[in-house]
Amino acid sequence: MNANPDGRGYAPDKAAYIKRLRRIEGQVRGLQRMIDEDTYCIDVLTQISAVTKALQGVAVGLVEQHVKHCVVNAATNDPNHLDDMVGEATKAIARLLRS
Amino acid sequence: MNANPDGRGYAPDKAAYIKRLRRIEGQVRGLQRMIDEDTYCIDVLTQISAVTKALQGVAVGLVEQHVKHCVVNAATNDPNHLDDMVGEATKAIARLLRS
Amino acid sequence: MNANPDGRGYAPDKAAYIKRLRRIEGQVRGLQRMIDEDTYCIDVLTQISAVTKALQGVAVGLVEQHVKHCVVNAATNDPNHLDDMVGEATKAIARLLRS
Amino acid sequence: MNANPDGRGYAPDKAAYIKRLRRIEGQVRGLQRMIDEDTYCIDVLTQISAVTKALQGVAVGLVEQHVKHCVVNAATNDPNHLDDMVGEATKAIARLLRS
Repeated sequence: MNANPDGRGYAPDKAAYIKRLRRIEGQVRGLQRMIDEDTYCIDVLTQISAVTKALQGVAVGLVEQHVKHCVVNAATNDPNHLDDMVGEATKAIARLLRS
Repeated sequence: MNANPDGRGYAPDKAAYIKRLRRIEGQVRGLQRMIDEDTYCIDVLTQISAVTKALQGVAVGLVEQHVKHCVVNAATNDPNHLDDMVGEATKAIARLLRS
Repeated sequence: MNANPDGRGYAPDKAAYIKRLRRIEGQVRGLQRMIDEDTYCIDVLTQISAVTKALQGVAVGLVEQHVKHCVVNAATNDPNHLDDMVGEATKAIARLLRS
Repeated sequence: MNANPDGRGYAPDKAAYIKRLRRIEGQVRGLQRMIDEDTYCIDVLTQISAVTKALQGVAVGLVEQHVKHCVVNAATNDPNHLDDMVGEATKAIARLLRS
């Protein structure tokens, strides 16, 4: 009945990820308020660094769980697709490094 | 009557910055939805890269206007503080590079 | 006689990696020359971006081969250490993101 | 008598920059040795992060001196080119952020 019975690599921590992203959403709203209230440029930049770091933290967590579950799963059950999966994960990491 | 008559370096583009940050806020909400709907890990990571890039774009714009207005202003009107201002801006850039 | 009979994940491409790193070494020597010859600051910065990108490219390749060989190997032959290995790889990716 | 009367922003620290870049060159040679000696992937990645961080440190120093000298100089002596110079510096920072 469930199209995705196993869920994703991050399934066990879904609630925690959504909570972290909600906090990040609040930080982005805080940035709007800072601009609206003419906060000093450098303080806005410091806060953007904090939000970026928080987002990257979420990304690193997702990468970890993707490798631990999805990639390792493919290694066992679907070795034909393993190279594709690792390649895909690597491209995602490369995109994070460039963003 | 205005506590900050000169405004900040980004003052002329305040509305545009707030609009960009509102779009980023929507993207962060989109990330929560993606997690909630069990979107494939790699697609979530791709979207996180896009949000990070958008945030960095805002930061680069703020740095540009800070240098163009605040730093250049200090060079003319407050040379004693110029070194401090440039040092402070450089530290903000270093933080962005590490975030 | 060989302390590391299996080699590392990157073993099949050792020569290619060393060649890439030799080119990067040449680029770093080029940077010294640029500074020595009073090259315009912005042109030095552009070249530093190119070297950083080349280094990150090497890192991304190593991550890919580490996951494809070492992590997948642990999944099959040493499942007790799998979590440690993925955690260790994730920490390395996090360090790259912050560097 | 001075081949470069204006000098670059980094002129007063030329020797220090060349020394830092020489150390980075040595670190890149160290990376080649690590690969050649089959060092564990994660240890190579850790070292790449250190080299990248050292390179970014040089870049941040150059940005600081470029703004302090070249940009501020343009503000005083060549205001027509100020916007171009700040735009150019900002683009260099954006490239660093993406590298």
